[in-house]
Amino acid sequence: MVGGRGVVALITLTTDFGLTDPFVGIMKGVIATRAPGMPVVDVTHGVPPQDVRAGAMVLRAAAPYFPFGSVHVAVVDPGVGSARRAICVVTATGFFVGPDNGVLSLAAPPATRTAVHALADDRFFLSPRSRTFHGRDVFAPVAAALATGTLPSALGPPVTDPTELVLPEPRTQGTRIVGEVVYVDHFGNLVTNIPGSSVDGAGVVVLAGNVRAALVNAYADGSVGQPIALVNSWDLLEVAVRDGSAHQQLGIGVGAPVTLEPR
Amino acid sequence: MVGGRGVVALITLTTDFGLTDPFVGIMKGVIATRAPGMPVVDVTHGVPPQDVRAGAMVLRAAAPYFPFGSVHVAVVDPGVGSARRAICVVTATGFFVGPDNGVLSLAAPPATRTAVHALADDRFFLSPRSRTFHGRDVFAPVAAALATGTLPSALGPPVTDPTELVLPEPRTQGTRIVGEVVYVDHFGNLVTNIPGSSVDGAGVVVLAGNVRAALVNAYADGSVGQPIALVNSWDLLEVAVRDGSAHQQLGIGVGAPVTLEPR
Amino acid sequence: MVGGRGVVALITLTTDFGLTDPFVGIMKGVIATRAPGMPVVDVTHGVPPQDVRAGAMVLRAAAPYFPFGSVHVAVVDPGVGSARRAICVVTATGFFVGPDNGVLSLAAPPATRTAVHALADDRFFLSPRSRTFHGRDVFAPVAAALATGTLPSALGPPVTDPTELVLPEPRTQGTRIVGEVVYVDHFGNLVTNIPGSSVDGAGVVVLAGNVRAALVNAYADGSVGQPIALVNSWDLLEVAVRDGSAHQQLGIGVGAPVTLEPR
Repeated sequence: MVGGRGVVALITLTTDFGLTDPFVGIMKGVIATRAPGMPVVDVTHGVPPQDVRAGAMVLRAAAPYFPFGSVHVAVVDPGVGSARRAICVVTATGFFVGPDNGVLSLAAPPATRTAVHALADDRFFLSPRSRTFHGRDVFAPVAAALATGTLPSALGPPVTDPTELVLPEPRTQGTRIVGEVVYVDHFGNLVTNIPGSSVDGAGVVVLAGNVRAALVNAYADGSVGQPIALVNSWDLLEVAVRDGSAHQQLGIGVGAPVTLEPR
Repeated sequence: MVGGRGVVALITLTTDFGLTDPFVGIMKGVIATRAPGMPVVDVTHGVPPQDVRAGAMVLRAAAPYFPFGSVHVAVVDPGVGSARRAICVVTATGFFVGPDNGVLSLAAPPATRTAVHALADDRFFLSPRSRTFHGRDVFAPVAAALATGTLPSALGPPVTDPTELVLPEPRTQGTRIVGEVVYVDHFGNLVTNIPGSSVDGAGVVVLAGNVRAALVNAYADGSVGQPIALVNSWDLLEVAVRDGSAHQQLGIGVGAPVTLEPR
Repeated sequence: MVGGRGVVALITLTTDFGLTDPFVGIMKGVIATRAPGMPVVDVTHGVPPQDVRAGAMVLRAAAPYFPFGSVHVAVVDPGVGSARRAICVVTATGFFVGPDNGVLSLAAPPATRTAVHALADDRFFLSPRSRTFHGRDVFAPVAAALATGTLPSALGPPVTDPTELVLPEPRTQGTRIVGEVVYVDHFGNLVTNIPGSSVDGAGVVVLAGNVRAALVNAYADGSVGQPIALVNSWDLLEVAVRDGSAHQQLGIGVGAPVTLEPR
């Protein structure tokens, strides 16, 4: 994938901007002005403010479901206006545009990259460029440029050392696997860093306070109000409460330890 | 309406997924991949989690305003991954796709249906199919299939006994009508199950704690901070507080009794 | 800009409807039915309920970034159903449609207007027309009419005295400028009414309780947890807390006084 007119199917947006302000709408205005007719799809704008890791996980979960040639823009950018770089990562399936703080690194990991370029040529930016809203002034116009045929190599020089995000890895202790909660969703489900491939047969998941959650196959397999554990749609072990919120009921959030015990 | 290429105008989405996670974006990615260029419109993703009745009411209120041939996908699905069926309901005006738990039954009531089919043929699903996210793995790809010319009858066998949702009906007591609050909106307005046709001339609405709300024609007819009652845009009796939230001010929510007294 | 088929690029929506109800989706259904294929872009639906001034500020910030010929619909409308007028304001760059309560007046100020027409001809409205939801019954269908070639002059008679919103102006006291907070964004940043052009060189911003915020160029120039002040993307002085919420941390909201002191 090298870019070029006709290759780009759509632009996706992943940010921590929320939807109460006009920030996302303004980005779409810039794209509609510079790439008329290009579809724009929201992945989410509900990434917790400045939470680069959550943004990276969300983009990793979503990008594979979008068409070949999508331009994925991710703006979780506490360093906006500083000397932090901005980059475009090219893979065999699409383009990833955002700040060079790791937010793109899980969705487009090193082995998948065919090129990484700095966003350096300000011909592609809005002018004047603010120090606070590069979603509007840099990332939206660069996405529009890619969508209208600009080659990634025209955006700026190659980058050989983009920032890589390192997620905490689960540890093996005998037959047990010890991981942690890495994401809490809208339903209060607790997503862990333990991969689905680690879940083999029956078992129980132990949480803080010796709360125990039986392994099941689907939310509906649980009793209402009881903690359960299952492999979720991101192929990760998840703790849930049927028809309830595990986050609220158990008082457990990101960073809490989670142990998978075979039975 | 039997489906077919060129018939489908757009796909709508109604879910309880919220907008903080990438779930809705992922569904749109699947649709964009399988039905390129098909417009997707959000009805809302703010249905209270697992509240099938609220989802059914929302879809009933919205569907009539969409073009002939729309595909309406509704995913409020506490039984996902269980043996609960998934269905496609066909009416003279459109297609309704979702779990067979009643969420489609108010928007496409029995008298309007020309066919109901189970979603059984897994050729139309994503593979592998998760046990937790059929919005992505079943409903979005089926909607895309309908949008690209698949006939509903190809999705699976006819269903003769889809789940029907029964809403509480208001009762008549002499000249009074006793109903209840069935929906609370973003403004804190209390939507009741008393139809607009029951409101004939002057009257007063009595709520818990003997709170009385005068019947008016428009929000602006009320005094700031006073409870008022009016026939709303869904043609249902509604209690509001001008420039305020009836829900917060009166402490009244879904299920609370509401009595309409003629004067 | 006089309107006409082929001129309109897209329709934008700015409301206080929130996203938990189907109201916005229903407006999009009406537009899709009456102007098939016309793109619709959300500016935001998170304007605080009935806050006409916030809606006007949001639209002013967003409209310049949309294509020539956009139709901007703004519905923050506490007077819906009353005798308040509804209008279409035409400028050299686009159309602005909404209630005549000032919500359009900042984005399309007097000097930019080429025409203002009342929305009076009910041929362009839905029938029957509710007293509570003119977003659906009046504003969406009028936007669709403009998008399909209706001239603004066909909508109704000229209006010579549309409602103008007056924002509080900052005052000069010697070398100090005293303004106030006029908007709080999703990140908790406090946007003031002091224009960026007033910020010249070094200085400090003083808030209630003698909280002092140093002037910087970018969020990343601050120390984590310390209040800072900078010129934001709307070219207004803003008070922020790096990687935090100034609104929460300082307990300061709309209306609070803000003094800019040169150093």
